[in-house]
Amino acid sequence: MPQYKAPLRDIDFVLNDLLDYQGHYAKLPGGADATPDVVDAIIKECAKFCEEVLAPLNQTGDSEGAHWNDGKVTTPKGFKEAYDQFVAGGWQSLSHPVEYGGQGLPLSLSVVKAEFVGTANWSWGMYPGLAIGAMNTILLHGTEQQKQTYITKLITGEWSGTMCLTEPQCGTDLGQVKTRAEPNADGSYSITGTKIFISGGDHDLTDNIVHIVLARLPDAPAGTRGISLFIVPKHRPDAAGNTGEFNNVHCGSIEHKMGIKASATCVMNFEGATGYLIGPPNKGLQCMFTFMNTARVGTSVQGLGCSELAYQGALPYAKERLSMRALSGKTAPDKVADPLISHGDVRRMLLTQKAFAEGGRAMIYYAAKIADYMMAGETQEDRDAADDHLGFMTPILKAFLTETGLESANIGMQVYGGHGYIKEWGMEQIVRDARISTLYEGTTGIQALDLLGRKILLQKGKSFRKFSAEALLFCKNTGPISGNPHKKEMSKFIWPLFRHLTAWQQYTLRLALRARKDREIVSCASVDYLMYAGYIVSAYMWAMMAQKSYEKLAAGTDQPEFYKAKIQTAEFYFERILPRTKAHAESMMASSKTLMQMEVDHFSFL
Amino acid sequence: MPQYKAPLRDIDFVLNDLLDYQGHYAKLPGGADATPDVVDAIIKECAKFCEEVLAPLNQTGDSEGAHWNDGKVTTPKGFKEAYDQFVAGGWQSLSHPVEYGGQGLPLSLSVVKAEFVGTANWSWGMYPGLAIGAMNTILLHGTEQQKQTYITKLITGEWSGTMCLTEPQCGTDLGQVKTRAEPNADGSYSITGTKIFISGGDHDLTDNIVHIVLARLPDAPAGTRGISLFIVPKHRPDAAGNTGEFNNVHCGSIEHKMGIKASATCVMNFEGATGYLIGPPNKGLQCMFTFMNTARVGTSVQGLGCSELAYQGALPYAKERLSMRALSGKTAPDKVADPLISHGDVRRMLLTQKAFAEGGRAMIYYAAKIADYMMAGETQEDRDAADDHLGFMTPILKAFLTETGLESANIGMQVYGGHGYIKEWGMEQIVRDARISTLYEGTTGIQALDLLGRKILLQKGKSFRKFSAEALLFCKNTGPISGNPHKKEMSKFIWPLFRHLTAWQQYTLRLALRARKDREIVSCASVDYLMYAGYIVSAYMWAMMAQKSYEKLAAGTDQPEFYKAKIQTAEFYFERILPRTKAHAESMMASSKTLMQMEVDHFSFL
Repeated sequence: MPQYKAPLRDIDFVLNDLLDYQGHYAKLPGGADATPDVVDAIIKECAKFCEEVLAPLNQTGDSEGAHWNDGKVTTPKGFKEAYDQFVAGGWQSLSHPVEYGGQGLPLSLSVVKAEFVGTANWSWGMYPGLAIGAMNTILLHGTEQQKQTYITKLITGEWSGTMCLTEPQCGTDLGQVKTRAEPNADGSYSITGTKIFISGGDHDLTDNIVHIVLARLPDAPAGTRGISLFIVPKHRPDAAGNTGEFNNVHCGSIEHKMGIKASATCVMNFEGATGYLIGPPNKGLQCMFTFMNTARVGTSVQGLGCSELAYQGALPYAKERLSMRALSGKTAPDKVADPLISHGDVRRMLLTQKAFAEGGRAMIYYAAKIADYMMAGETQEDRDAADDHLGFMTPILKAFLTETGLESANIGMQVYGGHGYIKEWGMEQIVRDARISTLYEGTTGIQALDLLGRKILLQKGKSFRKFSAEALLFCKNTGPISGNPHKKEMSKFIWPLFRHLTAWQQYTLRLALRARKDREIVSCASVDYLMYAGYIVSAYMWAMMAQKSYEKLAAGTDQPEFYKAKIQTAEFYFERILPRTKAHAESMMASSKTLMQMEVDHFSFL
Repeated sequence: MPQYKAPLRDIDFVLNDLLDYQGHYAKLPGGADATPDVVDAIIKECAKFCEEVLAPLNQTGDSEGAHWNDGKVTTPKGFKEAYDQFVAGGWQSLSHPVEYGGQGLPLSLSVVKAEFVGTANWSWGMYPGLAIGAMNTILLHGTEQQKQTYITKLITGEWSGTMCLTEPQCGTDLGQVKTRAEPNADGSYSITGTKIFISGGDHDLTDNIVHIVLARLPDAPAGTRGISLFIVPKHRPDAAGNTGEFNNVHCGSIEHKMGIKASATCVMNFEGATGYLIGPPNKGLQCMFTFMNTARVGTSVQGLGCSELAYQGALPYAKERLSMRALSGKTAPDKVADPLISHGDVRRMLLTQKAFAEGGRAMIYYAAKIADYMMAGETQEDRDAADDHLGFMTPILKAFLTETGLESANIGMQVYGGHGYIKEWGMEQIVRDARISTLYEGTTGIQALDLLGRKILLQKGKSFRKFSAEALLFCKNTGPISGNPHKKEMSKFIWPLFRHLTAWQQYTLRLALRARKDREIVSCASVDYLMYAGYIVSAYMWAMMAQKSYEKLAAGTDQPEFYKAKIQTAEFYFERILPRTKAHAESMMASSKTLMQMEVDHFSFL
């Protein structure tokens, strides 16, 4: 297993050089506490915790796995101790409101934390991670009493939380939810039903777990308009607000999965458990969606983490392992063969990982700035604008970064040759862990429908135009007719970026027109469209990173090689990765007939 | 786990409609025994055995795995019984010479067997599969006495065999092999060294195992020119030719792998084991390479098998699972939601698998015909021509079909959503098993170097031109200026195919010219070049399949829907998959500088 090192140098570049987080925090309402010193100290301390405490538990956690016995889940050795340290360090409460015991720092700082935690040990990170979903739901939709009862305990990490959505018959299509909520005399509800795929549904890290459960009231309309949201604690709080009586929430079993084995994926049986309505009746799905964007951005971090960790694993092996001679002449004449990294194709693999990891990081922190405004914007208008902007970015981030993260993870194995397939090297675990990321929190197909159907066509392109305008303005400000002193060097990036941005607009318009007559166009084009968009958004990031690097080099720096490597990676991305848009463009513009014409019975003649 | 059904209808189409195997066998020297009745009976019987005996052991074999204890390997429950049945059925000896107890049928019939066995249970199939490598080596390079001693036992399946190439310090780069062979007084050698990744290095299916071992003679030159080949049986044959004394061949351990867990991957310690030189001294690598093409075509079958099995798993789920409503209107108005297969994007996934499975099948049986001539061609010239032709196809088949097989396996999981990640459905096993296929028998990168460096540039494009000429002749004979009665319908395939074939020639020429000045171009372009080639070869197959389907429809058939679906799949392939060539073309023609310019120390600043 690669020895994880938090990429502090690159984080510094992205946050400070590229995205001016210092200026951002200074302007952000409530961001004053996030002074450069505080931010720096938090990042370094978090990196240390993740490198020293969480990373060593990643491979052992996979080998041991979570275990279920008689309704109780045991996490792997060391998980509980690490959790206690995490909570004691105040890491769970970083970005939550001071009035409920949080530290009130900007949301984006929690994204840095999430990157480090998620790359060091994704499975472990899911336990505190899911609690944040529960916390945000209660914060946004709970009554003051519900907040007082649950948020304080969740923020300290004393209790944890889950999101209980999926049932055996439905995951994506939550309108099919069957779990019942019968009103009790005291205003509470009696919750009965089975939920599956509940991450952290049971575990031994905390003595209580707060489940947020989707269920139907007796008189609820059918489908998505009849779903309500309930708080269902594993143990009801006692009079003093502490863990009280058991609430008939049973963990029936845990799944045997391909990966993230240390994260318990539970079947949860609610057997007349007491639940408390949160938000308005029958509006449960809307309440869920209000924080779906941040949850999905959270999953995109898994994609970034896989790219980073697989790269950290592949690079040293490529430098050390000796195999064959480089075609252009020996690079290690005194050795029996040249290191793998001497070969062009191995470099292609490594640079692909590097481009996905660093480009993905830029995308995520670009989005995290928007998320800060969504949470802390001064006016409702500011917050709504940020919400729209983030809503547009979210499916791209989630699907594109998890797909490219999975590709990077597979490349990491590939660099190791046959050794990559052997457990002890740890590279195959990254692939197995990565594989879930394109499935949960909405599959790639669902993200793609969300992007093209909801975020673009339904909004008549509003957020898309805003994003395009921003990226085109960047082209204008740094391109051939600008005053940019680096415009000559930048032209190799600005021209292709400009062409891609305008082509993207044209393709979108053509799809919108065709979708009026042929609704299925949206589903048929969606995944290619999303990947097409992802490569362009990433190209925008790489062009900005290149510009910033030229500026730093011109201004003088004590680490010019860092900025040169950044520019070289941008060149690689534009010449060897961005061309993938051509394939996606042609495929997404193909007729829907090629997908829809075949009769269901003619798919197979076995 | 999908219930495997051998695709008899499609095999019939490929062998009889598309490739005229009946005519082929009638003309093939020694092919007279392969009459239509015999071929049909063999295929059906083999299908039955694979469906009924091997397929049920696939998931249990994965759960149980192979076990090592005190130097001995135990295969999963049922493997030994299945092996005995396989051997009793004569399946191991199908295509081997009659004089050593084989049935002397054409090699291509063994490819059909390999497809069924490999799709039903790849891990199980590796035990008899590796023995074929050992058999072919002895047949081609052994003395008559060696053949009499070993081949007979291997052909009956009484003994099995392995190929012992890899060592801890080298896999691809076999010039680094260190295992020593010291001459004994009796003309035999004493073999000492450690081999790793030896599939079936030990097991409980047979009472003897014949290892083919690469080792160095004491006076051997360094590197690849000093490697010799030895037969090293686990037990030396006794005077009667039966399993005799133990030969100091120890299985030190087995690897813990991501997949193919039922196949024992062994560390083999040769501790002064007696070995017998096979072929000339120091010519071991050349001897190995003579049958490398067939071994690699064998591995490409794993790619086909993954596409087929993952498709067989995904399709019924897509028909049954209800989720959301189709954008173009309800397809199951009486149900709570529409089946997954109603959605355009799910169809895109299924058709991708279908196109890879059926296109891959066509490619493999197209190559198998050539392999028949390589083995049984009348003159040396015929055999050499077939060898060259197959040599050109082999890296494309091996790398392209395993890469697309892995993609299909991942799509299979994706269709299942979160359920795909759970072991009990069996879809994740296909991904884990598939993952090795792009690594062993030469990684995708090695195949790509073999194609572009050795099979194209070194040969000055000879085999490539032959292939191109054949495909262009097909375009001419079926295209707009031909007498083809279906030329109008075919034009949607012939034009893009023609354009791709000519572009492929031009790109190849440009790369060849550039490689004269910049050797590294070959490594930098290779993988993109190979995938580019793969999509075009597959397009040629799809165009031929479409033409044949139009012919069958015009001639009248009792199953027109089969041929219509074939044409529709070809349309899908040309409109939605073939465009991927654009991305590969642009990437492969990029400057080598984007890969080579970065200093090794600048890949990371951790």
